[in-house]
Amino acid sequence: MSGFAPRDPGFERAVRESFARQEFMRTLGATILRVAPGEVEIGLAVDRALTQQHGFVHAGAVAAIADSAAGYAVFSLAPPGHEVLTVEFKISLTAPAVGERLVARARVLRAGRSLSTAFAEVHALAGSGEALVATLLSTVLLRPLGGD
Amino acid sequence: MSGFAPRDPGFERAVRESFARQEFMRTLGATILRVAPGEVEIGLAVDRALTQQHGFVHAGAVAAIADSAAGYAVFSLAPPGHEVLTVEFKISLTAPAVGERLVARARVLRAGRSLSTAFAEVHALAGSGEALVATLLSTVLLRPLGGD
Amino acid sequence: MSGFAPRDPGFERAVRESFARQEFMRTLGATILRVAPGEVEIGLAVDRALTQQHGFVHAGAVAAIADSAAGYAVFSLAPPGHEVLTVEFKISLTAPAVGERLVARARVLRAGRSLSTAFAEVHALAGSGEALVATLLSTVLLRPLGGD
Amino acid sequence: MSGFAPRDPGFERAVRESFARQEFMRTLGATILRVAPGEVEIGLAVDRALTQQHGFVHAGAVAAIADSAAGYAVFSLAPPGHEVLTVEFKISLTAPAVGERLVARARVLRAGRSLSTAFAEVHALAGSGEALVATLLSTVLLRPLGGD
Repeated sequence: MSGFAPRDPGFERAVRESFARQEFMRTLGATILRVAPGEVEIGLAVDRALTQQHGFVHAGAVAAIADSAAGYAVFSLAPPGHEVLTVEFKISLTAPAVGERLVARARVLRAGRSLSTAFAEVHALAGSGEALVATLLSTVLLRPLGGD
Repeated sequence: MSGFAPRDPGFERAVRESFARQEFMRTLGATILRVAPGEVEIGLAVDRALTQQHGFVHAGAVAAIADSAAGYAVFSLAPPGHEVLTVEFKISLTAPAVGERLVARARVLRAGRSLSTAFAEVHALAGSGEALVATLLSTVLLRPLGGD
Repeated sequence: MSGFAPRDPGFERAVRESFARQEFMRTLGATILRVAPGEVEIGLAVDRALTQQHGFVHAGAVAAIADSAAGYAVFSLAPPGHEVLTVEFKISLTAPAVGERLVARARVLRAGRSLSTAFAEVHALAGSGEALVATLLSTVLLRPLGGD
Repeated sequence: MSGFAPRDPGFERAVRESFARQEFMRTLGATILRVAPGEVEIGLAVDRALTQQHGFVHAGAVAAIADSAAGYAVFSLAPPGHEVLTVEFKISLTAPAVGERLVARARVLRAGRSLSTAFAEVHALAGSGEALVATLLSTVLLRPLGGD
């Protein structure tokens, strides 16, 4: 339990519909695994198309799923008619991203009216093992649709 | 002029060969535009496959080229027989990444024996216009090949 | 329980002795509240001498205790004869730092041989209330004493 | 020349008056050295009261002057009747902060209506030498006085 109360009863559908419009997630092969108030998980199958020069998943792909999970964790708490934009994020790459698949688990640390802070961990899964490969801390802007 | 002296006279070829092994750059459609001692530029054609839910290039794709440019800026100063790994980066997304193409320009701020600091700016180009869309600050680890 | 095993049985004394040599903590009025393997808490009484222009505790003072707590959380897991240095940190200031006192609680997210990742939360306490005012994510270098 | 036009002709006085209300800058012994549109410099005499366990200036004190310089660089571009708050910053500590004095030089990278991005470098000065000891990238919120 996250301790957050959603302000849009249709929050899960809103998150999944928005995610489905992220062409880049489709390009990566990422899927949304779980949506709860203030919490979102995204999975990614490790594939050669995602690698850097040492055969690890590129930091940009790791960052992409962690950032999307963090943004949607904030979006899950938004009132209807709002959108989210990432202002900035910082990611620490704690171990090489290798294995069968990656899972980014994000949760909101502090939900503000316009600015929220979210945290995400990315784990690499292989067989029954799981290793922390990245941690992300981000600032996400929530604003009425059509605003600037 | 960057003010840095390369320690490997074949630094440009080393950077370009390593970049060519980054499958993820190929997946994105990114190309290396310029290599100088302590400085690297990477270009990316804006494509629908890279977008997030509002049609902007996804922060993960923007981060990917900025991070690669920063890592290779550090790598351009490495002695032969070394490799680089990003320890962490922070990216500020200052404007929506829209336009025809993106260019990430990275330079080394401080070259250390094992840890270096690099900075990158990402601009979006459309017609004759150019807008700053992101700034990145990263820590890059340089180590002998095969080490850990 | 942190799940980490200390490599120096005298880790608590080592942390407290090092903290006592941080003149800046004395200048701020900060004290060490708790030391466990991979976890450290630092307290700070809110004082006018620490404020910025709106009367909140300055981000630099908040960052100072969060960074020290994170560094000592890593140091608590070090073998004897080692020292720690912060490579970088990122801090999100989630609410104005006001109240009677601040508490920074840090824990190691990933302990590496030379580079570790630590996380800290800073809460402001007033009466029986407690508010999250900052979150920090840092990279800490562990090295043999006298090394560089 | 910064290329920014101030929106308050009295920007320099506004910055200096606000700085004078930062009790924490007085506690550290920091002074404001230069104010230009979108650029601010702050100086700090190195003193034992500011040190960490190895005798270097504590990362929190380095961060404090870099953050204040960055915040005031944004504030120098604000319309009258506004205030600034740091949302978050990331600082890379590139070399030990030792010497006679530190100088933090900040400039605005992108000035937004409410969110701006600023960059700062901190140099340590000793004799005629100057070394880069830290770089900071921050997000600063500009809002009407009395707002939230």
